[in-house]
Amino acid sequence: MTSAPPKRIAILGFGLIGGSVARALAEARSSLPTGSGHPSVVAWSPTGRGARQGLADGVIDAAEPTMLEALDGAELVILSAPPLETIDLIAQIGDEDRGRMTAGAVITDVASTKGAVMAAAARAGVRFVGGHPMAGVEATGYEAARADLFVDRPWVIVPPVPSDPEAVAVVRWLVATCRARSMELGAADHDAAVAAISHLPLVLSAALVEAVAGSAEGSDPDPAWPLAAELAAGGWASMTRLARGDARMGAGIAATNAAALAGNLRRYRTVLDDWISALERKGGVDAEALEARFRAARARLVGRDPS
Amino acid sequence: MTSAPPKRIAILGFGLIGGSVARALAEARSSLPTGSGHPSVVAWSPTGRGARQGLADGVIDAAEPTMLEALDGAELVILSAPPLETIDLIAQIGDEDRGRMTAGAVITDVASTKGAVMAAAARAGVRFVGGHPMAGVEATGYEAARADLFVDRPWVIVPPVPSDPEAVAVVRWLVATCRARSMELGAADHDAAVAAISHLPLVLSAALVEAVAGSAEGSDPDPAWPLAAELAAGGWASMTRLARGDARMGAGIAATNAAALAGNLRRYRTVLDDWISALERKGGVDAEALEARFRAARARLVGRDPS
Repeated sequence: MTSAPPKRIAILGFGLIGGSVARALAEARSSLPTGSGHPSVVAWSPTGRGARQGLADGVIDAAEPTMLEALDGAELVILSAPPLETIDLIAQIGDEDRGRMTAGAVITDVASTKGAVMAAAARAGVRFVGGHPMAGVEATGYEAARADLFVDRPWVIVPPVPSDPEAVAVVRWLVATCRARSMELGAADHDAAVAAISHLPLVLSAALVEAVAGSAEGSDPDPAWPLAAELAAGGWASMTRLARGDARMGAGIAATNAAALAGNLRRYRTVLDDWISALERKGGVDAEALEARFRAARARLVGRDPS
Repeated sequence: MTSAPPKRIAILGFGLIGGSVARALAEARSSLPTGSGHPSVVAWSPTGRGARQGLADGVIDAAEPTMLEALDGAELVILSAPPLETIDLIAQIGDEDRGRMTAGAVITDVASTKGAVMAAAARAGVRFVGGHPMAGVEATGYEAARADLFVDRPWVIVPPVPSDPEAVAVVRWLVATCRARSMELGAADHDAAVAAISHLPLVLSAALVEAVAGSAEGSDPDPAWPLAAELAAGGWASMTRLARGDARMGAGIAATNAAALAGNLRRYRTVLDDWISALERKGGVDAEALEARFRAARARLVGRDPS
């Protein structure tokens, strides 16, 4: 494997991210002179729906009926699935399907957590470079795929241990072709960072729904919920947007980044306790102190002291 | 006071809400035949900036230099300020300025909490009907004002005790002219509902910033913060949007709805504890159980069991 672009790319899983990668690849090659060498791109997904539509749209060259056929001759394999499904795919490829790929083929993924995925790849003995494009949108599915989804967004690359610069170069080519910014990180650093800015927010959003609207069958909502639901405005929509996301993805994130996520939730709970104390202060709330507190939080976000 | 539209309306405070009310009133009268009787609208705000610009834009008839001059002859007074400032304005009007208004003039407000505001009005002995348009946008200031801000949104009306149907009718006229939907509620019911769907989300958003990015000078951010900030995507933006809002407004909300808000935070903390237990489960996370949990939360939001 050289640093030349791969000749055949297989995308396994074809939802928002897989579809957007395919669209970005298709857009990139449409700007090349006709007849110049460019990779063929094939896709497979468990339901087959997205891939069939992608083929109909001219976004991919083939919608393969089985995973084995998709892997056949692939030089780059992009696993485009939630964390637990990504780990399953890695195990399957390691067990039985490796022979179908070109010798030296590189596998990468787009899952939200990296430690468990890298460990699965090491166990399976596959040639693997972890990946995570930081391009969250609330939409899911191939229908929402966009060629520009990754433009100027960070795309974390997690090299294997021991390192494999040629394999990393192939994934860097993919990231550049999707017009994202490569950012190399270790799996633990990645998982700690996304626990704070992505996985903690996800659980806070779901917990807000549970606390106010109730959760599982039989749990009681806040008595004010029926009325509150009628009054809900932009703040509620914004804070519950993540809870509308894919449940399987959420479960995979929680299951594969549990320790970092629990640590963040404990830290968050300490902050909440402090808010409760401030609101239940003997002698009444100190409005000036709370204003300073809101102002300081805002200043952290905007990166300066707001006027 | 009859149910005819008021002849002179004074808006005290001229930011997003006051400015949007003025724009909605201006739009409504622009659709009337020329020369037909319509209210004159004057505004005053402490800085005077917004009102001067509103006058230049033709949105109001006068930008009054003092609150007293704005009140002069007013039949309807709209207090358009954060909660604590609204309470201050009510006290001032009750103390000294009432004589300036037309006998029977009605005062209303737009503040986010109603219990403390209604109590202030009762103490001041003014003719008051509480109001709260549920039209949150993140922008603030007159520059962001829009004539259609309230269209089809609920606008809570809190009648005084004892009731005053004629005064309520004047505020209903205002709400209808802004093309919002009137919704009569008691102050306690209103405050409980907005504590759940608006004030709890606000504090959760600020607490997220504090837990991850640190808050006041000297408090430490999460060690992963500098890296996390680079990776922050849509989820972080969505969950911290409310923390970018006006700090004085946030403090006023917390100070005037402290008990309901603290109750909601305690309820929320119980839910978080349950998430922490699930993530720290002996024997590892039960991914199926967490998937069901995310799915149930999502179903509460979309109002049906999602596939």
